[in-house]
Amino acid sequence: MSTSKTNWKIVQLRCPTCCCYKTWKMPNVVMTAHPSNGGTVTQVDSIQHLPSPPHPPTVDGASESGHHMEVVKERTPQGGEWLLSGIICINILMLGCALVSSSAFNVVAITPVHRQIFLITLLVLSMLWMLFYMVVTSRKDHAVLFKDRHAGPVWLKAGLVLFGLLSFLMDIFKIATYVGYLHCDSPVKVAYPVVQAVFLFFQTYFLWFHSRDCVQLHTNLTRCGLTLTLSTNLVVWMAAVTEESIHQTEITHLNISVSHKLYRANYGAKKCTCSHMACETFKEAFYYLYPFNIEYSLFASAMTYIMWKNVGRIVEHHKHYKFNFYVKDVFIGPVAGLLLVVAGLVTFVLYKINILKEDKEKRNKALLIHFIMNIVIVSLMSLSTMIGCIIYRLDRREYVSDKNPTRSLDVGLLVASSLGQFIISYFSLVATVAMGAQGYLNVLNLAWAVVMVVEIGLQNYFIIEGLHREPINVMQANARAFQDHTEMANDVEGQISRFSISKKPSWKRRVLREVCAFLLLANIILWIMPAFGARPQFDHSAEIYFYNYTMWNAIVNIGLPFGIFYRMHAVASLFEVYLRD
Amino acid sequence: MSTSKTNWKIVQLRCPTCCCYKTWKMPNVVMTAHPSNGGTVTQVDSIQHLPSPPHPPTVDGASESGHHMEVVKERTPQGGEWLLSGIICINILMLGCALVSSSAFNVVAITPVHRQIFLITLLVLSMLWMLFYMVVTSRKDHAVLFKDRHAGPVWLKAGLVLFGLLSFLMDIFKIATYVGYLHCDSPVKVAYPVVQAVFLFFQTYFLWFHSRDCVQLHTNLTRCGLTLTLSTNLVVWMAAVTEESIHQTEITHLNISVSHKLYRANYGAKKCTCSHMACETFKEAFYYLYPFNIEYSLFASAMTYIMWKNVGRIVEHHKHYKFNFYVKDVFIGPVAGLLLVVAGLVTFVLYKINILKEDKEKRNKALLIHFIMNIVIVSLMSLSTMIGCIIYRLDRREYVSDKNPTRSLDVGLLVASSLGQFIISYFSLVATVAMGAQGYLNVLNLAWAVVMVVEIGLQNYFIIEGLHREPINVMQANARAFQDHTEMANDVEGQISRFSISKKPSWKRRVLREVCAFLLLANIILWIMPAFGARPQFDHSAEIYFYNYTMWNAIVNIGLPFGIFYRMHAVASLFEVYLRD
Repeated sequence: MSTSKTNWKIVQLRCPTCCCYKTWKMPNVVMTAHPSNGGTVTQVDSIQHLPSPPHPPTVDGASESGHHMEVVKERTPQGGEWLLSGIICINILMLGCALVSSSAFNVVAITPVHRQIFLITLLVLSMLWMLFYMVVTSRKDHAVLFKDRHAGPVWLKAGLVLFGLLSFLMDIFKIATYVGYLHCDSPVKVAYPVVQAVFLFFQTYFLWFHSRDCVQLHTNLTRCGLTLTLSTNLVVWMAAVTEESIHQTEITHLNISVSHKLYRANYGAKKCTCSHMACETFKEAFYYLYPFNIEYSLFASAMTYIMWKNVGRIVEHHKHYKFNFYVKDVFIGPVAGLLLVVAGLVTFVLYKINILKEDKEKRNKALLIHFIMNIVIVSLMSLSTMIGCIIYRLDRREYVSDKNPTRSLDVGLLVASSLGQFIISYFSLVATVAMGAQGYLNVLNLAWAVVMVVEIGLQNYFIIEGLHREPINVMQANARAFQDHTEMANDVEGQISRFSISKKPSWKRRVLREVCAFLLLANIILWIMPAFGARPQFDHSAEIYFYNYTMWNAIVNIGLPFGIFYRMHAVASLFEVYLRD
Repeated sequence: MSTSKTNWKIVQLRCPTCCCYKTWKMPNVVMTAHPSNGGTVTQVDSIQHLPSPPHPPTVDGASESGHHMEVVKERTPQGGEWLLSGIICINILMLGCALVSSSAFNVVAITPVHRQIFLITLLVLSMLWMLFYMVVTSRKDHAVLFKDRHAGPVWLKAGLVLFGLLSFLMDIFKIATYVGYLHCDSPVKVAYPVVQAVFLFFQTYFLWFHSRDCVQLHTNLTRCGLTLTLSTNLVVWMAAVTEESIHQTEITHLNISVSHKLYRANYGAKKCTCSHMACETFKEAFYYLYPFNIEYSLFASAMTYIMWKNVGRIVEHHKHYKFNFYVKDVFIGPVAGLLLVVAGLVTFVLYKINILKEDKEKRNKALLIHFIMNIVIVSLMSLSTMIGCIIYRLDRREYVSDKNPTRSLDVGLLVASSLGQFIISYFSLVATVAMGAQGYLNVLNLAWAVVMVVEIGLQNYFIIEGLHREPINVMQANARAFQDHTEMANDVEGQISRFSISKKPSWKRRVLREVCAFLLLANIILWIMPAFGARPQFDHSAEIYFYNYTMWNAIVNIGLPFGIFYRMHAVASLFEVYLRD
C-alpha cells in the first residue's frame, strides 16, 4: 500500500557485528556499504523499521562527505500505519466486550445468537483476509524478504496444533448437539461451530507457515488484517470464558439467578428438546473441551500479535551462535524432575478417579493428596530457584546490552501470563485467612497459595535474569575478539580465565543447568495437571462460599488459562536459559 | 545501593546532535570525548540507561585503537533492578484487588475496616519512603544529576494540586462524619482519612518537586519505593471506585442484595447512629468528592510511573528548540471554540439545576438539552479533526525519527485512557440498539455514543500523527544544516522552498493551528462537564435497566475517570501539536 508510493532510496545501515556499513537490496531501499574491521560481537539480531517517509531526506550525502555518520534510524512506524490497525482492534474488542457481557447479563434483548452472528462475521472476515494474504500478498516477489527466527517457536506451534485439534473436536460435538435442536432452535447455533471449525484449520495453517514473516508489502492492509484476526481471537476467548463460567455455575445447581435465567432462556422456557439420543453425552463432552479452545485462542492471539509487531521490520541475520544442547554434565536435576513428573502423574490420576466419587471421605482424600503433591512440587521448585539465584549472584556476568524486541515480548508475555496464577492464589489466600483456615484442607490450601506466590515470583526473577545474561559462548567469542587486539593481551588473559573458556563447564554452570532442567520438568507436570482437568478450585468449596459462585468462577476461568499458558511459556524460556548457561 | 559497588569507569557516548563523542563526569562513569564536526540535528533528548555492570568490559580499548566504534548501549536495566520493584508492585496490587473485592462481596469475614488497615499500612510505608528520599537520597551530591523536562508537565502538576485539595476536603468531611460514629464503630474509620490527608500533602509535595528527577543513587531502593507508591495509589483508586459504586447503588433504592447487605453491615445491623447533627450533610458532601479522589489517584499513579521509568536514566540536554506561541494567525478556531465553551457551560448549569427537580418532564428536558449539546460539540470536533487529517495527507512531512520514551509514554497514556470513554460508549450503544432505540432520548443517546466513538478515534489519530511529525522549526534547522554542505546546495534549495522556511506560515499550517485551537477548547468543555458532576449515564435509565445497576455502575465508575483524564491529556497533547505546526 504505502510502499508503492516511494521510489528506491538509499539508506546506510551499520552492521552491529562488525562495525561496518552494509548494502541491502530492498523493494524501495538500497543500503550502501563501507566495510571496515571491528571488534564487538553481539548475539542478537538488529531489527529496524523501514517505513517509507513521504520525503526521504538524502541522508547519504553526509556519509559521502567522509564522516562515519550514524544513520541507523530505529524509528517508530508512521503514525497512520499502526494507528489505523490499533483503532480497528480497540473498536472490535470494545464492541465484543459489550456484546458478550450483555448476552450473559441481559437475556431478553441480546441472546447468545446475536453474539454468535457477530462472531461469525468476524471469523469470516478474518478468513477472507488470511486467504488474501496467502494467495496474493505472500506470493509477491518482495513481500517477505526476512523471517524473524525468534517468532513462532516450536512449543507455540505445537501447542497451537494440539489445542486446535481439541477445539475442532469440540466443534464437532457442538454441531452434533445443536443439530438435534434444529427443529426448535436457531440454526445459527449450528452455523457458528461450523464456521469456527473451518476457521481453526485456516488459522492454524496460516500461523504454521507464516508466523515468522516480516511482511514488507501491503503493510497497511496486513496490519489491519492481523489486528482483525487478533481481536477475533480475543472476542472468541471472551465468549468462551463467559460460556464456560455460566455452564460451571449451572451444573452446581446453586440458585444463581443469572445462570438459571440463561438456562431457561436457552432451553427451559421454550421447552425445546433434543431430537436424537446422544445429545446429552455430546453436550457434556464439548463442555469438557472448552478449556482447550480458550487456550487455543490465547496461543493464536500471542502469535498474531508477534506477527503484527514484525510487519515492516528488517531482520538482519548475522553470526548466529549455535547453542550446544548436551545433557551429559547434568544428572541430579533431570532425574529429580522426572521422579517428580512420575509422582505427579500418579497422584493426578488418583485425584481424577477419586474426585468424582459420591463418598465425601474419598473426595477429601483425593484433595488432600493433590494439595500435598502440589505443595511438595512448588516448594522444591522454590528451593532450587533460590539456589539458582544465589549462583547468579556469585557468577557475576555481563548483561546482554542490545535491544531485542522478541526477548522483551517474551518477558512481557511471561510476566503478564503469571498474573493469572497470582490472582487465583491471592484470592485463595485472602478467603482462607479470612475464614480462619480451619481444617487441614484449608490449611493446605493456604500453604499452597503462599508457596505458589513465592515460587512464581522467584521463577520469574530467575528466568528474566537468565535471559538477560550474556551467554557463555558469546562471552568466549568476545574474549577471542579482544585477544586480536594485541595491545590488550594482558587484560584479556585474565578475562578468559575468569570466563572459563575451557570446554569443561565450571561447577556454577553445572549447578545452573541442573536447576534449569529440574524447573523445566517441574513446570511440565504443573502444566499437565490443570490443562487436563484438575480443578481443586471448584472441588474444594472454601472460596465458592466466601466469594459467591459467579465471582470465583470468573476469577478461575480468566486466571487459570493464563496460568496454563504461563507454565508452557516458562518451559520454553527455561530451555533457552539452559542453553545459554 | 548497586552503584556503590563499582568504581569509576569510562564510557564513550556519541552525541546525537553533532555526531561526536562527549565527556561526562558521573559518580561512577567518565565518558571520553573525541570532538568532530557533523551535520544532523535531532530535536529530542537522547536518553540512555547507565547501570553498573558487575564486570564492565573495557570498551574504551577499541576506541583507543582508532576506530570510531559505536559504544552507546541503550541497555535494558539489569534484571534484578526493575524486577524486584515489579514483583513488589504486582504482589501489592493482587493482594489489594483480592481484599477490595472480598470486602465488597463478603461482608461477614472481611469488612471495610480490614481493607482500611491494609491501606493505612501502605500509605504509611509510602510516606516513610518518600521522607527517606527527600531527606537522604535527593540531598546527596550525585543523586539527581539530570531532570527529564518532559516529565511532570504543568497540566499534570496543576491537576494533581487541584484534585489533591478536593480530596483533602473529602477527608475532612469523612473525619467529621466518622467521629460521630466513634462510640459504636471502629476508630479505624477515622484513622484512615486522617492518614490519607497527611499522605495527600506528602505525596503532592513530593511529586511537585521531584517528578522530573532521574535518580542515579540508591536506584534499587528508589525503584522499589516508587512502585510501592504506585501500587498504593492504585489500591486507593480501586477502593475508591468500589466504595463509590456501592454508594451509587445504595442511593437508588434498588433492591440489589450486595449494597443492601453492606449498608446493613455498616450501620443498619449494629443500629449505630451518629452522635452529632451535621452527620448526614457531611456524608452526602464527601460522596460528591469521591470522583476527585479517584482522579487524584490516577494522576499520582501516572507521575510515579514516569518517575519509575526515569530511574537510572541519563538525559542529555542539548539544543532545545523554542516553540513560538503566537495566536495572531489563528482566529476562527479559538473563537468557535470559546463560543462552544460558553454554550456548553450554560447548558451544563441548566442541566445541573433541572436534573435534581422532582418533575420528570423537566428532568427529561434537561437530559435532552445535555444530549443535544454534547452531540453538537462532538460532531463539530469530528468534522474539524477530519479537516486536520486531510491537511496532514496534503502536507506530507518527515516523521520524527528518534526514540523518545516520554512521547511513547504520552501516546500510551492517551490511547489507554481513551479506552475508558470507548467502553462506556460501546456499552451504551449495544444497550440502546438492543432495546430498539425507542423515544427521542434513546435515539439521542445512541447518536451521542456513535459520534463519540468516531470523535475519539479521529482525535487519537490526529494527535498521535501530529506528535510524530517533524516540527516546522526543526525542519528549518535541518534545511540550514544541509545548506552547509555546499555540494548539496541544489537539492536543499528545493527543500527549503517546499518546507516554507519563510516567517509567514502557509495556509496548511494555519488551518492545522485553527483545528488544534478549536479541539483544545472543545476538549476543555468536554472535561468540565463530567469532572464537575454531569452523570447522564445514571440520570438516563436505559442502561441501568438493560445491564443491572451494579454492572453499569462498575463500567461507568471505572470508565469515566479515565475518560476525564483523557480529556485533560488531550488538551495538553493538542497544545504540543499546536506549537509544533
